[in-house]
Amino acid sequence: MSLAQFNLEITKIRDDRQHGASELARRCLAILAEAAKTVPAQDAVVLREQLKTLAWELAKTRPSMAPLQNLLHRWREELALDITLDLTAARVLAAQQAEALIVASRQAVAGCAAHAARFLGPGRTIMTHSLSSTVLQVCRLLRDQGLQVIATESRPLAEGQVLAEKLSNWGIPAVYITDAQMGLFAAHADAVLVGADSVQADGAVVNKVGTYPLALAAHDQGVPFYVCCESFKWRQTGEPLPELEEMAADELGAPERPGVTVRNVYFDITPARLISAWISESEVRQ
Amino acid sequence: MSLAQFNLEITKIRDDRQHGASELARRCLAILAEAAKTVPAQDAVVLREQLKTLAWELAKTRPSMAPLQNLLHRWREELALDITLDLTAARVLAAQQAEALIVASRQAVAGCAAHAARFLGPGRTIMTHSLSSTVLQVCRLLRDQGLQVIATESRPLAEGQVLAEKLSNWGIPAVYITDAQMGLFAAHADAVLVGADSVQADGAVVNKVGTYPLALAAHDQGVPFYVCCESFKWRQTGEPLPELEEMAADELGAPERPGVTVRNVYFDITPARLISAWISESEVRQ
Repeated sequence: MSLAQFNLEITKIRDDRQHGASELARRCLAILAEAAKTVPAQDAVVLREQLKTLAWELAKTRPSMAPLQNLLHRWREELALDITLDLTAARVLAAQQAEALIVASRQAVAGCAAHAARFLGPGRTIMTHSLSSTVLQVCRLLRDQGLQVIATESRPLAEGQVLAEKLSNWGIPAVYITDAQMGLFAAHADAVLVGADSVQADGAVVNKVGTYPLALAAHDQGVPFYVCCESFKWRQTGEPLPELEEMAADELGAPERPGVTVRNVYFDITPARLISAWISESEVRQ
Repeated sequence: MSLAQFNLEITKIRDDRQHGASELARRCLAILAEAAKTVPAQDAVVLREQLKTLAWELAKTRPSMAPLQNLLHRWREELALDITLDLTAARVLAAQQAEALIVASRQAVAGCAAHAARFLGPGRTIMTHSLSSTVLQVCRLLRDQGLQVIATESRPLAEGQVLAEKLSNWGIPAVYITDAQMGLFAAHADAVLVGADSVQADGAVVNKVGTYPLALAAHDQGVPFYVCCESFKWRQTGEPLPELEEMAADELGAPERPGVTVRNVYFDITPARLISAWISESEVRQ
């Protein structure tokens, strides 16, 4: 992998609108595993320094997504423990460590979804916002247990349509609404279940924009609001709130007009006081 | 005006997505003025009964919109007071009464907008949702007073784009956002100002869907939330909440999928506890 190829991968990660935080973190680890095997380096020490720099570059691409920072930081720490001087061995080990973290991420997400499915139980109407791969796994686990889903459109790119398609394929009855109807339909749900891009140490959740007003509506109507994400999404105590990424204005499809600024911030922050429980692979924190 | 022509007008009012409650109420009065002049009737008594029935039919078309009921009810009451037996005189009077109510409605809206503009004062950043003709008049009144506006898209038909176009033409700086960003942007406003389709006697407001989550966000962030509408929009004590009209699902542009029900309810209800003040042509009720 040349530096030019790596920079192309960086751009793909930065511009990706199709995948969630966990999936993009795994994609970054896969890029680093490939880089570990093939990036030019004259010895093991230089290789590790090189890889740490690449990991750092990747971790910066999506500030709202904690798993990128957490998993790549973990990988960098593991790299730092390696003291082999053999270049080939160092390459193999670094790639293996990245691949092991990919497996750990997948297992954590699956564990988290299993946990959430057990916690919710059968016969529920769940409302969600945007498209979380973890929430998707929860739905699949509950597909034969009388699950019904209320799915928001999730503008600008309408990830809710992808969710509706999956639910339809799995035979799970769904109601599809505009984001503006979230206040009206929260009352029809037994619970709201969303994923997260990151969770602050105090429990505040960074997730697709629209999550915060949905949490307000659920809270106002006494509907429990659950966040379901693996522990790789939690930030450490003292870590500041991330920059909320803004994407291209033209995604909204509004004509350009003098004096009108189109804003397209992708994330918002839901304070902990609006959250009934955080479900991870290891616990339900209420 | 034949009955067939009248029924065509009924359909137009029922399907109208471009105009607000006050404008549609005036459109109904204009239809009735025309009917008063031209609907077949053998005498004045039959004419008045006929017109009362037509007014009743029109008032039922848009249950969420109080001005239709209130203004047409007022007109029916005025008709009932008329005792002339001269058909031509009865026609002229009924039409004049309808036209006078059109003027009264316009004056009430203009008075309400002037009131709101004075109340808000110069140099404000106002957030609004959907397209209220009253809010539009407030913006025009404040155009040279440093007004800035945050406008939501307002799916499914994006009335926010019409608002953004007007603001741009008037040289009022505007920020245009998706409905899902309303929670994030409420904090940037000095106040939220919305119109209403109707106001219950207890102050609860029926307005374009999305108003309720916006009010929740404003309340959560300590931003005042003002409803600005003329007194023809208030319902009497004891009147129940109206049916919230639902429009065609295909307005959302989501593909049809087995098991997926697309919902397109146009209105939601914002409880009085979330509203800081109601501004009408006669008072600011806080």
